[in-house]
Amino acid sequence: MEVKKINEFVVGDYIEGFFLIKSVNIKTTNNNKKYLDITLSDKTGEINAKMWDCTEEDESKYKDNCMIKIRGNVTEWQGNNQFKIDRIRLANDEDDINIEEYVQAAPEDPKFMYGEILKYIDKIKNPDINKITSHVFKENKDKLLYYPAAKSNHHAIRSGLLYHIKRMLMTAEKLSEVYLNINKDFLFAGVILHDVAKIYEMDSNELGIVSDYTNEGQLLGHIIQGIKIIDKEGEKLGIDREVSMLLQHMILSHHNEPEFGSPKRPMIPEAELLHYIDMIDARMYDMEKALEGIEPKQFSDRVWVLNNRRLYKPAVNEE
Amino acid sequence: MEVKKINEFVVGDYIEGFFLIKSVNIKTTNNNKKYLDITLSDKTGEINAKMWDCTEEDESKYKDNCMIKIRGNVTEWQGNNQFKIDRIRLANDEDDINIEEYVQAAPEDPKFMYGEILKYIDKIKNPDINKITSHVFKENKDKLLYYPAAKSNHHAIRSGLLYHIKRMLMTAEKLSEVYLNINKDFLFAGVILHDVAKIYEMDSNELGIVSDYTNEGQLLGHIIQGIKIIDKEGEKLGIDREVSMLLQHMILSHHNEPEFGSPKRPMIPEAELLHYIDMIDARMYDMEKALEGIEPKQFSDRVWVLNNRRLYKPAVNEE
Amino acid sequence: MEVKKINEFVVGDYIEGFFLIKSVNIKTTNNNKKYLDITLSDKTGEINAKMWDCTEEDESKYKDNCMIKIRGNVTEWQGNNQFKIDRIRLANDEDDINIEEYVQAAPEDPKFMYGEILKYIDKIKNPDINKITSHVFKENKDKLLYYPAAKSNHHAIRSGLLYHIKRMLMTAEKLSEVYLNINKDFLFAGVILHDVAKIYEMDSNELGIVSDYTNEGQLLGHIIQGIKIIDKEGEKLGIDREVSMLLQHMILSHHNEPEFGSPKRPMIPEAELLHYIDMIDARMYDMEKALEGIEPKQFSDRVWVLNNRRLYKPAVNEE
Amino acid sequence: MEVKKINEFVVGDYIEGFFLIKSVNIKTTNNNKKYLDITLSDKTGEINAKMWDCTEEDESKYKDNCMIKIRGNVTEWQGNNQFKIDRIRLANDEDDINIEEYVQAAPEDPKFMYGEILKYIDKIKNPDINKITSHVFKENKDKLLYYPAAKSNHHAIRSGLLYHIKRMLMTAEKLSEVYLNINKDFLFAGVILHDVAKIYEMDSNELGIVSDYTNEGQLLGHIIQGIKIIDKEGEKLGIDREVSMLLQHMILSHHNEPEFGSPKRPMIPEAELLHYIDMIDARMYDMEKALEGIEPKQFSDRVWVLNNRRLYKPAVNEE
Amino acid sequence: MEVKKINEFVVGDYIEGFFLIKSVNIKTTNNNKKYLDITLSDKTGEINAKMWDCTEEDESKYKDNCMIKIRGNVTEWQGNNQFKIDRIRLANDEDDINIEEYVQAAPEDPKFMYGEILKYIDKIKNPDINKITSHVFKENKDKLLYYPAAKSNHHAIRSGLLYHIKRMLMTAEKLSEVYLNINKDFLFAGVILHDVAKIYEMDSNELGIVSDYTNEGQLLGHIIQGIKIIDKEGEKLGIDREVSMLLQHMILSHHNEPEFGSPKRPMIPEAELLHYIDMIDARMYDMEKALEGIEPKQFSDRVWVLNNRRLYKPAVNEE
Amino acid sequence: MEVKKINEFVVGDYIEGFFLIKSVNIKTTNNNKKYLDITLSDKTGEINAKMWDCTEEDESKYKDNCMIKIRGNVTEWQGNNQFKIDRIRLANDEDDINIEEYVQAAPEDPKFMYGEILKYIDKIKNPDINKITSHVFKENKDKLLYYPAAKSNHHAIRSGLLYHIKRMLMTAEKLSEVYLNINKDFLFAGVILHDVAKIYEMDSNELGIVSDYTNEGQLLGHIIQGIKIIDKEGEKLGIDREVSMLLQHMILSHHNEPEFGSPKRPMIPEAELLHYIDMIDARMYDMEKALEGIEPKQFSDRVWVLNNRRLYKPAVNEE
Repeated sequence: MEVKKINEFVVGDYIEGFFLIKSVNIKTTNNNKKYLDITLSDKTGEINAKMWDCTEEDESKYKDNCMIKIRGNVTEWQGNNQFKIDRIRLANDEDDINIEEYVQAAPEDPKFMYGEILKYIDKIKNPDINKITSHVFKENKDKLLYYPAAKSNHHAIRSGLLYHIKRMLMTAEKLSEVYLNINKDFLFAGVILHDVAKIYEMDSNELGIVSDYTNEGQLLGHIIQGIKIIDKEGEKLGIDREVSMLLQHMILSHHNEPEFGSPKRPMIPEAELLHYIDMIDARMYDMEKALEGIEPKQFSDRVWVLNNRRLYKPAVNEE
Repeated sequence: MEVKKINEFVVGDYIEGFFLIKSVNIKTTNNNKKYLDITLSDKTGEINAKMWDCTEEDESKYKDNCMIKIRGNVTEWQGNNQFKIDRIRLANDEDDINIEEYVQAAPEDPKFMYGEILKYIDKIKNPDINKITSHVFKENKDKLLYYPAAKSNHHAIRSGLLYHIKRMLMTAEKLSEVYLNINKDFLFAGVILHDVAKIYEMDSNELGIVSDYTNEGQLLGHIIQGIKIIDKEGEKLGIDREVSMLLQHMILSHHNEPEFGSPKRPMIPEAELLHYIDMIDARMYDMEKALEGIEPKQFSDRVWVLNNRRLYKPAVNEE
Repeated sequence: MEVKKINEFVVGDYIEGFFLIKSVNIKTTNNNKKYLDITLSDKTGEINAKMWDCTEEDESKYKDNCMIKIRGNVTEWQGNNQFKIDRIRLANDEDDINIEEYVQAAPEDPKFMYGEILKYIDKIKNPDINKITSHVFKENKDKLLYYPAAKSNHHAIRSGLLYHIKRMLMTAEKLSEVYLNINKDFLFAGVILHDVAKIYEMDSNELGIVSDYTNEGQLLGHIIQGIKIIDKEGEKLGIDREVSMLLQHMILSHHNEPEFGSPKRPMIPEAELLHYIDMIDARMYDMEKALEGIEPKQFSDRVWVLNNRRLYKPAVNEE
Repeated sequence: MEVKKINEFVVGDYIEGFFLIKSVNIKTTNNNKKYLDITLSDKTGEINAKMWDCTEEDESKYKDNCMIKIRGNVTEWQGNNQFKIDRIRLANDEDDINIEEYVQAAPEDPKFMYGEILKYIDKIKNPDINKITSHVFKENKDKLLYYPAAKSNHHAIRSGLLYHIKRMLMTAEKLSEVYLNINKDFLFAGVILHDVAKIYEMDSNELGIVSDYTNEGQLLGHIIQGIKIIDKEGEKLGIDREVSMLLQHMILSHHNEPEFGSPKRPMIPEAELLHYIDMIDARMYDMEKALEGIEPKQFSDRVWVLNNRRLYKPAVNEE
Repeated sequence: MEVKKINEFVVGDYIEGFFLIKSVNIKTTNNNKKYLDITLSDKTGEINAKMWDCTEEDESKYKDNCMIKIRGNVTEWQGNNQFKIDRIRLANDEDDINIEEYVQAAPEDPKFMYGEILKYIDKIKNPDINKITSHVFKENKDKLLYYPAAKSNHHAIRSGLLYHIKRMLMTAEKLSEVYLNINKDFLFAGVILHDVAKIYEMDSNELGIVSDYTNEGQLLGHIIQGIKIIDKEGEKLGIDREVSMLLQHMILSHHNEPEFGSPKRPMIPEAELLHYIDMIDARMYDMEKALEGIEPKQFSDRVWVLNNRRLYKPAVNEE
Repeated sequence: MEVKKINEFVVGDYIEGFFLIKSVNIKTTNNNKKYLDITLSDKTGEINAKMWDCTEEDESKYKDNCMIKIRGNVTEWQGNNQFKIDRIRLANDEDDINIEEYVQAAPEDPKFMYGEILKYIDKIKNPDINKITSHVFKENKDKLLYYPAAKSNHHAIRSGLLYHIKRMLMTAEKLSEVYLNINKDFLFAGVILHDVAKIYEMDSNELGIVSDYTNEGQLLGHIIQGIKIIDKEGEKLGIDREVSMLLQHMILSHHNEPEFGSPKRPMIPEAELLHYIDMIDARMYDMEKALEGIEPKQFSDRVWVLNNRRLYKPAVNEE
């Protein structure tokens, strides 16, 4: 019997340990028997698990986002690992589990990241830009601490949104040291606000797991939702109208092309940079993830979110 | 010497009459002489006109949107009619000109159309939908009375926006007699509000001539501007949140496809219908205009706004 | 044991009743045993059913479009309902089944709809347009009474084609009350004839179930087939050549864009309107169907035929 | 004074000779003087010509497709050669002009080509395919002898259509020696019939100069027109229905993609080959023309009809 | 018990015979038992096979590209044939198997085809073009004898690349008899060299079965790899620079459009012809294969590589 | 009379000064008189100039890239400034002109930039990557010192290529401080080498003015040319094959999409970053240029190279 993280599982392992139920469905076999179809997760990844011959009690006991202790072995089904559960029970107080250890999360502490972002806000000199950015960011502090940046794409992890914003700010500051004409106030504010409405577009629990999009999220989307927030808060705070309009324009245009959801393309250089900074951070995240565990001189599988590319892991290193 | 409307001009005519300067530019010939390059218009159309050898006084006297009296003859330049001005003066009070007779305008009286639209608002039974539609429509009465629906595309005429709304409402009511499940309240409100922010997207004078887009119009566009109006007015009036959200969704999705400016496609049948009603009214307007003056069994020129199609005028008629 | 319609089935139900076999295949399990894989249907919908351990007699007895009486229970397989058959027999005369009650069909009587369409033909004043429309419509009466409008898309139900034509005619008449320049004769004729060749493009039985496309349907398609019918019948009946040519143009252009099968875009306003009337009727049908059974404030699943959209069911109603 | 062909004109030449007026327009200068704007042509090409200060007599005397004798010199206007006419008169009987020598035409005699094509028809063994191909080809002999294959694209020259068909047949026969499964009867018939309806799509005079598209050509296009011819003639001649249907399919699919006018892609190998043979012949014609007069190691200008490519003339030759 | 080729298998057959393992995977059933999932092949095709309840010895014994003797029966799974293995053993020397009889291969002998291609090289008169073509072709003789032209598309069979080249050369020669201006030297060389780098893009064993793309094949692709070969060999052999550059251009442009991998479109007629000759040979191969075994007046299934078309088998034949 | 830079010219100015002839053409007026059509330039921009009534001596004296002294006045032609030359002579030694002052050039000294880039090369630790980058860069020093980065797009100025590389290296270094997994060696080498073959794709004189593309540049393009350089130099220098292959991959994929000239998308993170760094530097350059001289709260004209966008100049500034 072994204690391993999910990303270490090998077909044939017999495993015991604690895991999080990311989602669970009751299904029926061809022979008309019920079983639980579970997505197990821990900090390192996810695996599909089956609990055959489940009882009615099991059906009602094991729910989404429960911590469980299980025993069973790693099998293979159509080329993917699968977990066959032999024993299962709910984790209890005596187990003394820290649930955050079982959830995929950003590599930095949310409060630390929150504080770092505040420092960037302090660097915004224009009082109007500073005021509205600070206000909107602080108003939404509670949710920002744990929200992911997406349901299933890049940064779909606990506090992923903060991590995305923080790395983008780092990049934004660096680029403004090369492109000296850039208005840093707009650029920093744009980075902080561009995706802030994702917390109204998706429903996430405090583990950073998104159950679904909100109704307004589906009907309008975070770009429109974000513009409305800036518009209304801008009016309430008495912000200069051009400042408010340009921040709205940056949010509107940050996907860069109509077919990706931006009806207007960037019309100020800061909006153009925002788009590229966003793309770079998303792509570096996705590529790093795709290359995890790939051996040198090997290719990853095709990655849907990267236009179905396969990625390559060079053997050459800096020396 | 003849008194003719612009759409009756034939090469060789010698013309005298009153016309509106839609736009005027001072230009210089190869021989370094100045001349006025004018777009003349009346109720029936436009023509390019040249006033050669102009004086400095001329330059300062003839401006956009002036009424002038001119004499000259109709020539041809690269396949298009052109007007060579021999004499020119400003119209004055004694001429007793009614400027509206010289401007392309909707075929119905703006106040009449405004009143007709109010009747449709009265048919909206849901009190929240009725209240916000009525409020936004009446708040913008002054501009709605003369605004065109576009700078240069369909309904780019005085009061074109009202005319567009009114015909769309007629169609909306008819369609709701066929498709009985349609919620007429949403459909009527969607028609009335879908383009209302065009009055903030463009700068038009009271003749319905658009000088340019506003800054906010360029950076955000009438779809986003319209959503913000509904959002804020909805909050102020205490409208049900779902009502406000769905009206915003209808505005957002009425261009139907991302590449035409709608990041979300219609997700309620009323929004889908709104799109088609809008298309039908625009296309019928453009086609009727393209076929004006075409002889039976002949084709029009290519019409850019109709995907570069040529239109055909059948000889067959209802009998 | 319960008697329910298919759209009322819930996992766990034990059901007895009559159903139509829409299609049946003999398959083999991993253990090399044969079973019947059946698509059951009634007026309300379809469900996949399995009859395990079937005999050779079963294999030869149960065929497409048979009525059967079955008993069994509703299970789930990969998120969809499935029916496990315990007992099965063919329906017989004593069961006194009216097969039309078990088939999805248009909500109005075919003969009634046929009669209604004849009334619209009577409104066509131009004798040539009237004659050819009337002739082609009546010539194909037998098939028109039961043909669906599609194999699997909108109006893929018994008499769906008639229902589609009739609703389009209602809309066409309404629109011609708004757009007064429209030639109603062409518009009505275009509506009636635009899809008439679908009865030569597909093979349907009298239950309105399409087994496949015809060879000519695949090689040429209903647009080309329809043009040929008008061309030849027009010649036979001595119809004015322009009338015939324009009706052919309307059929040719009614999909509006080359990538949707129309090599020519509409060049007369009536052809343009025909396209939009067709779209509206198809979309309203598909949207209504997608929203069936959706609870207020919920979204449907993604609907492939609607560009993969999810639809929303508002809670707000007309009051 | 020199006697030169148009493709030999150099800026500065003073020229005298006979030319054909391909088209003529009366225009007006900035100074309000009339002049004739003429497209002159001979066997070797075309040039724009201006006759300044023309009289009313001139206006009525010089018309499209007249032979004229002119004198004047070759100038340059915006990078292109232009001809400034000093003297002009109509050619008369005494000039003893053979008009065909002044018209761009296929490099082979039309009657010879017609005869060659008949020989290919003789090679069609299937009696039905032979009968309908022969019938349609011979029925249209008069026009086929002089029609071009296009208004302005490839083979837009006198008898260009025959030349196009003949070269395609040569290629078709060669390919059928490599791809032995190909049904030569269908392939030859498809080549001969694929563009035959161009003689109904365009109005050409006997010089092979197209004035315009016909009304039916614009509303339906030569693909649809060709299908109708096969359909009707096939019925009249009692041709096997499958033969007729497949020939129609070949015509329908020979542009290969919906966006190029073929709603159906080729579904038999002969139709696929037909498309490629057509493309090859058009491209070889256009490329040869584009490379005329280009020096070795130089590029042509951009050629619109070749996707705006520039072509290269190698210095290397077969030895 | 029957001895049949794979393309003759019918559900229910009980088969004994020798087959090649094209690929084999060890998988696990829902009941946690291991089985072998095998792609069996012979000269005529492929079939999926299952060997249930395999032992550890089996797992290590049966590998890709082994010849085996098996017994079992043909079943069906989701509409496709499947083979259930009852008995299995490796083929041994006593079985006296000629492995090439069990592999899909070009219909002509590789050495014969190689020789034929050499004859075409002899026809290249320009010494530089001849020298480099001959050199590159002969240098790679070993691999060219067995390489397929693709991993899974057209000509994905043993010696498929040679067969593709040879048929293309036949076509090239024929076309140069119609289009007399074509430089045959370039055309023949282009045909021979256009895909030669496929032997560096893919890893194939001597049976012509491709295990995967090479790393360089994935990162650069055969077009770039081919250009580099010509560039370097051209320099080594002292070939005229223009010759080398144009051969590189032909390789670069032979996919014709950027979206199919050619950043430059053909700029010499020989490159354009090369593209069409390549397309014709691929399409004729794919279509012939798709129509194998189709009955007259029937359609094939949709063929992915042919833009998802279905193909039709006419009943009409040459007589 | 005024001495002004081109970007200060106002219609009506009378100007005297030295300028560079960027290009000159001899043209003919409607009245058949010759004139010189000149593109004048200085460090600040370009203007079209006309010298009417030129002599044969003038024609032969004034050539591309000559320095001239002129007098004349600034006029307007169709909305653009134009210069009417009254007097003209060649600059001579006594004028003591430093030609570089009259040419648009990068804002930093080429030798300084060259030295800066060498410092980045020193930071490349992997000896193979360092060696090939250093070698290729130094080999091409002469041309790199003055080449522009494009014929007419971004950085089409003297030493524009060096400036582009240097700013990209600055950005690359900054980004590698945020994305710590990035291999700086590859990233720096990729930046330095990605466009190096532009010096073989275009013919530029030492003023950084490109007369045309080279033949190889047109037939293959700088991406392919660059790959060949790396491939051959890599072999000569005995560089590790994977290093060479990956640098080639970075060059190949740096346009990111097939339709922009990269048949392969980036498959290593460093290649992806290279693309974005390239885009950012080009876009910042183009946007800065487009906003030059725009007043606050105004829009620029449409900029073709920026997808026809208009850019906005905010009034808000950092404080």
